[in-house]
Amino acid sequence: MSQVNVDIGALRARGCVVTGGLGFIGSNLVHRLVGEGVPVRVVDAVVAEHGADRRNVEGLDVDVLEADIGDARVAAALRGVSHVFNLAGQVSHTASMTDPVRDLELNTITHARFLEMLRVENPTARVVHTSTRQVYGRVDRLPVDEHTAARPIDVNGVAKLAGEHLHMVYCHAHRMPITSLRLTNVYGPRQRLTSDELGFLPVFVRKVLQGDSIELFGGGEQRRDCLFVDDVVDAILTASAPEAIGAVYNVGHVRSHSLKEIAEALAALAGTGSEVIATPWPPVHRRIDIGSFETDSGAIHAALGWTPKVDLADGLRRTLDFYREHPWYLSSI
Amino acid sequence: MSQVNVDIGALRARGCVVTGGLGFIGSNLVHRLVGEGVPVRVVDAVVAEHGADRRNVEGLDVDVLEADIGDARVAAALRGVSHVFNLAGQVSHTASMTDPVRDLELNTITHARFLEMLRVENPTARVVHTSTRQVYGRVDRLPVDEHTAARPIDVNGVAKLAGEHLHMVYCHAHRMPITSLRLTNVYGPRQRLTSDELGFLPVFVRKVLQGDSIELFGGGEQRRDCLFVDDVVDAILTASAPEAIGAVYNVGHVRSHSLKEIAEALAALAGTGSEVIATPWPPVHRRIDIGSFETDSGAIHAALGWTPKVDLADGLRRTLDFYREHPWYLSSI
Repeated sequence: MSQVNVDIGALRARGCVVTGGLGFIGSNLVHRLVGEGVPVRVVDAVVAEHGADRRNVEGLDVDVLEADIGDARVAAALRGVSHVFNLAGQVSHTASMTDPVRDLELNTITHARFLEMLRVENPTARVVHTSTRQVYGRVDRLPVDEHTAARPIDVNGVAKLAGEHLHMVYCHAHRMPITSLRLTNVYGPRQRLTSDELGFLPVFVRKVLQGDSIELFGGGEQRRDCLFVDDVVDAILTASAPEAIGAVYNVGHVRSHSLKEIAEALAALAGTGSEVIATPWPPVHRRIDIGSFETDSGAIHAALGWTPKVDLADGLRRTLDFYREHPWYLSSI
Repeated sequence: MSQVNVDIGALRARGCVVTGGLGFIGSNLVHRLVGEGVPVRVVDAVVAEHGADRRNVEGLDVDVLEADIGDARVAAALRGVSHVFNLAGQVSHTASMTDPVRDLELNTITHARFLEMLRVENPTARVVHTSTRQVYGRVDRLPVDEHTAARPIDVNGVAKLAGEHLHMVYCHAHRMPITSLRLTNVYGPRQRLTSDELGFLPVFVRKVLQGDSIELFGGGEQRRDCLFVDDVVDAILTASAPEAIGAVYNVGHVRSHSLKEIAEALAALAGTGSEVIATPWPPVHRRIDIGSFETDSGAIHAALGWTPKVDLADGLRRTLDFYREHPWYLSSI
């Protein structure tokens, strides 16, 4: 692998666990690891409507354990591996507001159970956990670095932040080698397109592929620094370097775009006649909207040299090409 | 009451709920409220060894519901009251590390259930929630203000912070009038003295009352800004002012002291011959020690005028006097 200090020897010899490995980012990581000759055990709860699909790893020689990461059966899967990539999580903002306890159980309690199993079974495994920029909530100042106080604005953000904090507690109190990455909005192949609950990017991609119009609340002036999933996979692998132990790093793009720009770029690339239309804010969305967000990823760049390689136009083009070759993503339930 | 903008009329007419009202801070708040003619409903889970004791409200005319705050029976207690003081919580750091899931259930999940009940039953009740300075963890710079990124160093801190964040999510997303206070170390009457798990202050008080020596890990150079419980009760009532809605405020003392100074002051005041002895750090404690902590409470002072009135010497004297008049605290299990 191109990443500095990734212990590919240990990975190939002892293998790894990828939780959430049937989901969007997880399955892209699995594809990369398998391509590098790394034995992979996938643990995935296959929570309905949350992006997991066995077809995301179709054709790959991987073990798949269909289980919640807090399930006692996961203990055996953790034994002996050199690395654990803990990407499991529920990602729906609105579901977290209608059923807060369920979200806390999926995104916090299960991680506590998982970390306890890991502490018992394999406390020296190198762990990279994925958190989210969503933990920051609505911020006063852009770009956002890791010293910014996190103020999550929905239950999903609260639960994800608690899950991240648990990882750091286990790192510092139990001396387990853990790193957590706060990921910006990610797009690319193998994302569930048929839900409106997984962020705006899969919705936009679906709409332009189908030639439907994209509605932008308030005109879409909010900015986001979107990352192509291959850059995120690079960041996850890079973050397994020893010098990243104990760190929480932002992982975002150096360039941001307004939602309007992203929608218009997608519509133009797709060429299906989709229109981009401004609509007024629905009150329920407005209250949990965070405005613009721009990630300062200077810390991971300085410490590990990671920086995104794929710009938006190229990433969107590759994304559309992928879904045209794999049309089942447009009809998957 | 002396606090500015406390709606004492509504409190007297409609009453309030105090969760954790049989515990240390809760029962002191209940005494104050009852003294002001406010009808009080106490909700307390009476979790073993966590400070709740019916004798803390002995002689007061209050309703007591012995229930977890997430219990469905709590819904009825919430109806109609003007204020809710949500002080319930488990406070043991070491227990949270041996049973993380239980701590998350007690300090996070139950608050989610409680807030959901409140949203349904009484969403306009004025809520003051108590969080803790413990959410900050080990900080780089003193004093600590609310812009400091929270990095809890044990599971209890993670769970408490998630509980606090849930309150703010309900405030902003559901427009419920909520304020949260991050309390520093608190001491005074009605604290459980017989546990070693509730912070250093009750341990020190017990030891000097019994004439036992106080052992200070590493010599006790760490500083804390301790608050007498009456000042905390003032802060909680003051924070029910309308201008505090949506805020998270630090609540600490303007003056800090080293643990050695506090121990020596207590030993001198008690006059029981207790010695103060430096001992080496036990590794398990060292790993979760945060060093010195000093609270910057400038925000609540600027917004609401609250400031502590009781200095350490006076507070410690009043504390020792109370326990001498109520010796059962030294033998309570």
